[in-house]
Amino acid sequence: MNMQQKPNWKNKLHEVIYGTHTPAGKVFDITLLIAIIYSIIIVMLESVESFDEKYHSFFNISEWTITILFSIEYILRIICVNQPKKYIFSFYGIVDLLSTLPKYISFFILDSQFLSVFRALRLLRVFRILKLIRFVGESNKLIRALRNSRSKIFIFIFFVFIISIILGTVMYLIEGPENGFKSIPQSIYWCIVTLTTVGFGDITPQTAVGQVLATIIMIIGYGIIAVPTGIVSAEYTATKDKTSNTSNSSCPNCGTDIVFSDASYCRRCGNKLHNA
Amino acid sequence: MNMQQKPNWKNKLHEVIYGTHTPAGKVFDITLLIAIIYSIIIVMLESVESFDEKYHSFFNISEWTITILFSIEYILRIICVNQPKKYIFSFYGIVDLLSTLPKYISFFILDSQFLSVFRALRLLRVFRILKLIRFVGESNKLIRALRNSRSKIFIFIFFVFIISIILGTVMYLIEGPENGFKSIPQSIYWCIVTLTTVGFGDITPQTAVGQVLATIIMIIGYGIIAVPTGIVSAEYTATKDKTSNTSNSSCPNCGTDIVFSDASYCRRCGNKLHNA
Amino acid sequence: MNMQQKPNWKNKLHEVIYGTHTPAGKVFDITLLIAIIYSIIIVMLESVESFDEKYHSFFNISEWTITILFSIEYILRIICVNQPKKYIFSFYGIVDLLSTLPKYISFFILDSQFLSVFRALRLLRVFRILKLIRFVGESNKLIRALRNSRSKIFIFIFFVFIISIILGTVMYLIEGPENGFKSIPQSIYWCIVTLTTVGFGDITPQTAVGQVLATIIMIIGYGIIAVPTGIVSAEYTATKDKTSNTSNSSCPNCGTDIVFSDASYCRRCGNKLHNA
Amino acid sequence: MNMQQKPNWKNKLHEVIYGTHTPAGKVFDITLLIAIIYSIIIVMLESVESFDEKYHSFFNISEWTITILFSIEYILRIICVNQPKKYIFSFYGIVDLLSTLPKYISFFILDSQFLSVFRALRLLRVFRILKLIRFVGESNKLIRALRNSRSKIFIFIFFVFIISIILGTVMYLIEGPENGFKSIPQSIYWCIVTLTTVGFGDITPQTAVGQVLATIIMIIGYGIIAVPTGIVSAEYTATKDKTSNTSNSSCPNCGTDIVFSDASYCRRCGNKLHNA
Repeated sequence: MNMQQKPNWKNKLHEVIYGTHTPAGKVFDITLLIAIIYSIIIVMLESVESFDEKYHSFFNISEWTITILFSIEYILRIICVNQPKKYIFSFYGIVDLLSTLPKYISFFILDSQFLSVFRALRLLRVFRILKLIRFVGESNKLIRALRNSRSKIFIFIFFVFIISIILGTVMYLIEGPENGFKSIPQSIYWCIVTLTTVGFGDITPQTAVGQVLATIIMIIGYGIIAVPTGIVSAEYTATKDKTSNTSNSSCPNCGTDIVFSDASYCRRCGNKLHNA
Repeated sequence: MNMQQKPNWKNKLHEVIYGTHTPAGKVFDITLLIAIIYSIIIVMLESVESFDEKYHSFFNISEWTITILFSIEYILRIICVNQPKKYIFSFYGIVDLLSTLPKYISFFILDSQFLSVFRALRLLRVFRILKLIRFVGESNKLIRALRNSRSKIFIFIFFVFIISIILGTVMYLIEGPENGFKSIPQSIYWCIVTLTTVGFGDITPQTAVGQVLATIIMIIGYGIIAVPTGIVSAEYTATKDKTSNTSNSSCPNCGTDIVFSDASYCRRCGNKLHNA
Repeated sequence: MNMQQKPNWKNKLHEVIYGTHTPAGKVFDITLLIAIIYSIIIVMLESVESFDEKYHSFFNISEWTITILFSIEYILRIICVNQPKKYIFSFYGIVDLLSTLPKYISFFILDSQFLSVFRALRLLRVFRILKLIRFVGESNKLIRALRNSRSKIFIFIFFVFIISIILGTVMYLIEGPENGFKSIPQSIYWCIVTLTTVGFGDITPQTAVGQVLATIIMIIGYGIIAVPTGIVSAEYTATKDKTSNTSNSSCPNCGTDIVFSDASYCRRCGNKLHNA
Repeated sequence: MNMQQKPNWKNKLHEVIYGTHTPAGKVFDITLLIAIIYSIIIVMLESVESFDEKYHSFFNISEWTITILFSIEYILRIICVNQPKKYIFSFYGIVDLLSTLPKYISFFILDSQFLSVFRALRLLRVFRILKLIRFVGESNKLIRALRNSRSKIFIFIFFVFIISIILGTVMYLIEGPENGFKSIPQSIYWCIVTLTTVGFGDITPQTAVGQVLATIIMIIGYGIIAVPTGIVSAEYTATKDKTSNTSNSSCPNCGTDIVFSDASYCRRCGNKLHNA
């Protein structure tokens, strides 16, 4: 077994960081969740000019503290995982790295234009929340219902696009650039805005014929909104009664989370699992 | 039994105020409903400047009459309940008190800024309607379906937030402050406006790339609106056939309403119930 | 039997006007449908100023022709029905009268302000289409599903109103008249516009706190749109499989249409029916 | 059998162009799909003035290449089909011809106004994608669910129209031309915009009564959006479990695609099929 080769403190650390069953693991997860949410709020408020002017130094200190904490966590994760390379190049490994880098780089580079894009990378931490949330049973059911209806929803969206191309082009020919429908792509944009019942109102049909067609587009949109609902509804009812044999642990080897409790091997690194 | 310790008139009053089975109790409830709706309309119209100028004295007299009536009702409720303290500190007890206070306080304080906020407290009476409505069988079913799908809808809303944070930030980077996307929080606000298909149109993407991303956001929103529908639909179908063993009375001790007819003890004060 | 007391031509006329089974009856119904749609289009186009100026005399002649035709039809209906009074004071009898009157009255009164309101009465003919459509089996199922979920949808709408009153008032206190939220009723109006995901954009929150609350309102609206859908969906599935024993005829006595084929007596005038 | 009368190369060509089972047929279909999508993007970008100015010659060459390729494909299709006339006058035959013609005609005619309408014909190629997509099993189920609920959705849309005519007229009478409701058709247009929860915001009610009615319209719209969803949902659940016995081939005689795998004769030209 892989587990015996590691020193004891590594095993303990692993349990705290990757486990979700032990009290220490739960405390760690919740602390992490709070830290991530706090850091996201900081990043968001920093972008508000009036706030940034007032509390610049507070934001700066907060961000440095969080960045250093996440960096320590990143290093600990690498240390206690059996196959560090697998973790580093996994999706969450890259997210963990990318979201800590911007602050360090801001130390060297001062080009503000480039930095503002780079800073946004810190928001990648949001994905970490998604990972923590995945352990909640309900979201697994939701994800499964969505995954099962994936192909149908894709085809539905495709139909919406085709309809929008046809009707958008017709609207472009009817209304023309003088009424705000400047080009076919923009008319298609307007058509999707209308079809999805968003209706910004920045572009609106001015001619009588255009308004009649717009009416038809709206009613089509109103009617076909039923389609994805019907699909997910049927799919959700189907998955509802199935017993959710989902697991709440992650692979000790590479840190990939294990979705099904009856899995004997990690689906990513092939490591034989504890419960097998 | 608690009931024998009260004088007869208290018991009768209790039946009228808290009961819903006797004709007198029904008349009381309907009178209360009308009084509440009347008072809400008065509060709303008062806030319209042109109305307030014209009918100021009428609004004033109406409000005084209603306030005094509700005060009497409040005192009677305290008198005829067995455990007045429990009632006073219950949610509806506080609502009853808070919604009568503003008029009395307006007698002493004249700071209009503070008063306008305080006056709005009178609208808390709306919750009383909710309480009266709870006795209708249909709404119980609705509430139960919503309660059962609570955790799923919460997770769904959480996903919507995460998506909005990610896409809102990307929109902020694409469009920037010069096109109305002034900060990340405002971009997230715009993203939720678009994702929920509300589409105010106060902020709209101006660049081609922004419009393409907006299109994708709209279609995502249009597609995922199916998810809560599917959840509630499945939940509602499940609760539909169950016999609704709901009760229409309230605890004689503390005034809490009894939801399930097979309850033997009040879930709030533990009083042994009549029908037990 | 009532039928024998009428002369033969009256019976024949009755069959044509009220019946839907004979070829003559079907031709009559379709002719009527076309005449109604034509007359509705005329009324609508008349209100467009530029059209009215150009084709005033054409609209006038068309309207006179239609009005006279409908008047003849109205008189024939009275003649061939057994209980003319019942028909005259029935909903459709009043609709038939009111929709022909405006043109005759326009002959005597020339006050244009009053006339424009009066002319709109001609659009009441739209209800006639609804009557003709009722004979289509599908719409009966739709109406039944809607009728069965009536009380639930009513309670749902009531909840939406309560939520709008509470959130609208809070928005009024947050944003205030200086940001377009002029009064509590207008804030409630805005709240419903947002909650139903219509989102006109004529009033939009300007403060940060207002935008956060607006976000919450939108997500609530996005979430609870699922409720009526779930209700109707469940109800529609329930009524779907039931055999629709709907009738396609109307009472020979008073002209009320008979919805259920196993009805032995007219539900309005109590006349014993043919098929009984 | 028809097949033996054709020379061998025609049979092979037929298999490549019309077949979807052989590797060559699949490659042909995917190549076609890419060519169509590429040509659609070109047509769309051409309409953006700034792009057209920069890349005019590139667009021109691309369009000529695509047009010539599609022309060759069109001729090959005619050659290898047994009944060329049937193909030429079929829907897809006309689409194939119309979408290649504009480029050739642009050679002779230079009137830009006329050309811009004519050029849009090239977007008809979009329908070709729909044809290719039809072979995907999921879309067949979707189409069948939509087809089954066609009549119900039609009646639903009809109800929406009737409601819009009535409420639109009332809004016209309440608000009048001075508040943007210039005519009855435009008020109906506004009513549909509101009822379908699109809400452009180009026309909004200004009077208190108008806003109250608008509120009612929105809530009606919010409530009845449930109806088509319920219909499609119920229909989709019903068609979900049925085994989809759909075919993936097309008639060798006239090129019509065969939807059901148990079909023995082409539903268009009556040709006895291979698998019969």
